Amino acid sequence: MDDKQQYLNTLGEQAKAASYAMASLTASQKRDLLRAIAQKLSDKSASIVAANQQDVAKARENGLNDAMIDRLLLDESRLSGVIADIENVVALADPIGSELESQLLDNGLRLSRRRVPLGVLGVIYEARPNVTVDIAVLALKTGNAVILRGGKETLASNLALSEAIREAIGEQGLPCDAVQLIQDPDRALVSGLLKLDKYVDMIVPRGGQNLQRLCAEQATIPVILGGIGICHLYVDSEVEQLKAIEVIANAKVQRPTVCNALDTVLVHQSIAQTFLPKLYAHLSSLGVSFYACEQAEAIGKDAGTVTHKASDETYGTEWLSLNLGVKVVENIDEAIAHIRRFSSGHSEGILSDNIHATAHFINEVDAAAVYVNASTRFTDGGQFGLGAEVAVSTQKLHARGPMGLEALTTYKWIGVGDYTARG
Amino acid sequence: MDDKQQYLNTLGEQAKAASYAMASLTASQKRDLLRAIAQKLSDKSASIVAANQQDVAKARENGLNDAMIDRLLLDESRLSGVIADIENVVALADPIGSELESQLLDNGLRLSRRRVPLGVLGVIYEARPNVTVDIAVLALKTGNAVILRGGKETLASNLALSEAIREAIGEQGLPCDAVQLIQDPDRALVSGLLKLDKYVDMIVPRGGQNLQRLCAEQATIPVILGGIGICHLYVDSEVEQLKAIEVIANAKVQRPTVCNALDTVLVHQSIAQTFLPKLYAHLSSLGVSFYACEQAEAIGKDAGTVTHKASDETYGTEWLSLNLGVKVVENIDEAIAHIRRFSSGHSEGILSDNIHATAHFINEVDAAAVYVNASTRFTDGGQFGLGAEVAVSTQKLHARGPMGLEALTTYKWIGVGDYTARG
Repeated sequence: MDDKQQYLNTLGEQAKAASYAMASLTASQKRDLLRAIAQKLSDKSASIVAANQQDVAKARENGLNDAMIDRLLLDESRLSGVIADIENVVALADPIGSELESQLLDNGLRLSRRRVPLGVLGVIYEARPNVTVDIAVLALKTGNAVILRGGKETLASNLALSEAIREAIGEQGLPCDAVQLIQDPDRALVSGLLKLDKYVDMIVPRGGQNLQRLCAEQATIPVILGGIGICHLYVDSEVEQLKAIEVIANAKVQRPTVCNALDTVLVHQSIAQTFLPKLYAHLSSLGVSFYACEQAEAIGKDAGTVTHKASDETYGTEWLSLNLGVKVVENIDEAIAHIRRFSSGHSEGILSDNIHATAHFINEVDAAAVYVNASTRFTDGGQFGLGAEVAVSTQKLHARGPMGLEALTTYKWIGVGDYTARG
Repeated sequence: MDDKQQYLNTLGEQAKAASYAMASLTASQKRDLLRAIAQKLSDKSASIVAANQQDVAKARENGLNDAMIDRLLLDESRLSGVIADIENVVALADPIGSELESQLLDNGLRLSRRRVPLGVLGVIYEARPNVTVDIAVLALKTGNAVILRGGKETLASNLALSEAIREAIGEQGLPCDAVQLIQDPDRALVSGLLKLDKYVDMIVPRGGQNLQRLCAEQATIPVILGGIGICHLYVDSEVEQLKAIEVIANAKVQRPTVCNALDTVLVHQSIAQTFLPKLYAHLSSLGVSFYACEQAEAIGKDAGTVTHKASDETYGTEWLSLNLGVKVVENIDEAIAHIRRFSSGHSEGILSDNIHATAHFINEVDAAAVYVNASTRFTDGGQFGLGAEVAVSTQKLHARGPMGLEALTTYKWIGVGDYTARG
């Protein structure tokens, strides 16, 4: 075993040991712990901000652009926001310890299912240093231990944040190894973490397509894939056109860089001639560029809107920008077929006043979130009332869509007998 | 792309297409389908039994032992049992379509979570041909499509069974590709299936340690690991000794070849001298052999019982036989530490009349099923009242312990607005 594997094994062993202690904390002990962490981050804010300034200076040296530097910036005001958010998590109901069901079986056993922490989480993320605090706090709230692996661009910030958190945990008389940060920036550590199945119960990758794929391919631990949204809105023939355009505009431009932003609009052919010119005009004025099918391109030309050529490749792209795919479809079933082919299973919607069409769409489209007459931008833990968001899962097992605290828990079956044997 | 990959892609594409049709069936359509399958299997029983006789003859030629031949045997009477079991599944409540929760959000969205099928299941299993029918029926009951990969020893039987099932599906006007069998015995097909993430939503391996490990390492699809049980019973100092011995005997000898059978007994040192001689005497008379720690060995010697030497290797073995590990522990915490080290997270129990000890054990032991004064043999879908058992999961995500119909489902979020945009 090489040194790096040994280092990971040590982290894993420490995390597992800490997870046993965390699992039996009461809700009030965990609330006290989170408040102590908030206090400690506040006390140490000067040194945390200073550490972040090191990261920012290094990023500038390395020629990162302003948008990327903005992502990794953690100034006094942003840190205050991160700390204030901890109180929101403190206020959430603690899911741990509740009994999900219980029954007296014919075989004499009193059987129940009790919600318990998952154990040890491994979270791999990029850039934003606030994730270090967000994830640590959600993991601790649910009685888990966590191994964090942040981006190398924010190593100094993440180190300062995680050390403050560990200090607060220790001062509460709890094992500080409930939160550990992998400090070695070598990518081999990521691969090693993905195979640490002896100690780690779940991997959550928070990052782009390449990270997701790496985790799916290399992990021997269950992985929650997510955060990639190729999202569609289908505009049906029976629709209030101006209202539909408002929803499309919201889905596309309110925050184009996030996973629940709209990527492609599908338009029923019977309204394309009247609808598309209005859509083009409104969205053009908001800075949107279009990747259109042949028919949508022709309609654009007539209306004076220049469009790019759509292709299977553009339909399969998560834009994360002000680009938008536009396709005219023969009917709702062609829309559904297109979505089945290109969707990442994140957020899909229909805009229609026809109850048959909306019911058909809901039934036939397989995605984490399916909308009727609403923006795809709603797919979000805060919007869904979960109070917190660990990630947005686009896979179907364990958790689908926005993941709240429950996604960090599992259950165990408890059977109580009276020296009961199986007949 | 080679031919075998092309073959798998075709199976995957067909399964995915079929899964859309199956997902929207009503409960009564699915009941009719299962009954039609039962009827078809009954009509074709002579040819199914004949196909199985081919498998049996080949197995004899290849020198398989009687126990293994018994595992793959499907005679008229066993087939009748398999067919009769279908009616039990027909009678189960259909989990699909129910709304798990629903609320009107402040943002104006009416949000609900609806239970839906997973989509396409991949199930890899060994020997027993009845699994072909069991799994197909459970998959169809929950509106899923399934790709089956059975053992090569029962290829003729599995082919006859799956063809009958496909015929029945087709006769109901439904896509027969809802059930497909991989017919090529090449192991490369298993590896290929594990990476078919474009089409397959969940892999369930039903087989031994090697198959489980292969799936964990190679799959890019979520896998439900399970079916490996290294199970312990801890005998506390305050215990009714004779009753405890009855429970241990039940857990060890009632059916030693299954995953919930007992592997190691841990005994509190304060009762070891009086308890172990009685345990040895009773279990010896039932044919059990012991792998004992030094102290347990010495007590055995005094009592005239010969034991083998226990080691970390024997403690880490799932016996699947009449062997039993025996270890004297200083206290309950040493018992818990031993379980944490060697358990596979399947079934663990304490035998004790002390409420502090039993509560401590339940809280501290992390396993799918934790028992107080009961046999580990209860960990079973039938015993737990689930009505069916897809597998026994020993991992913590999605499903833990015996998996019933719900484990073959997921949910989607449905948000209904009135042309609602995010503020």
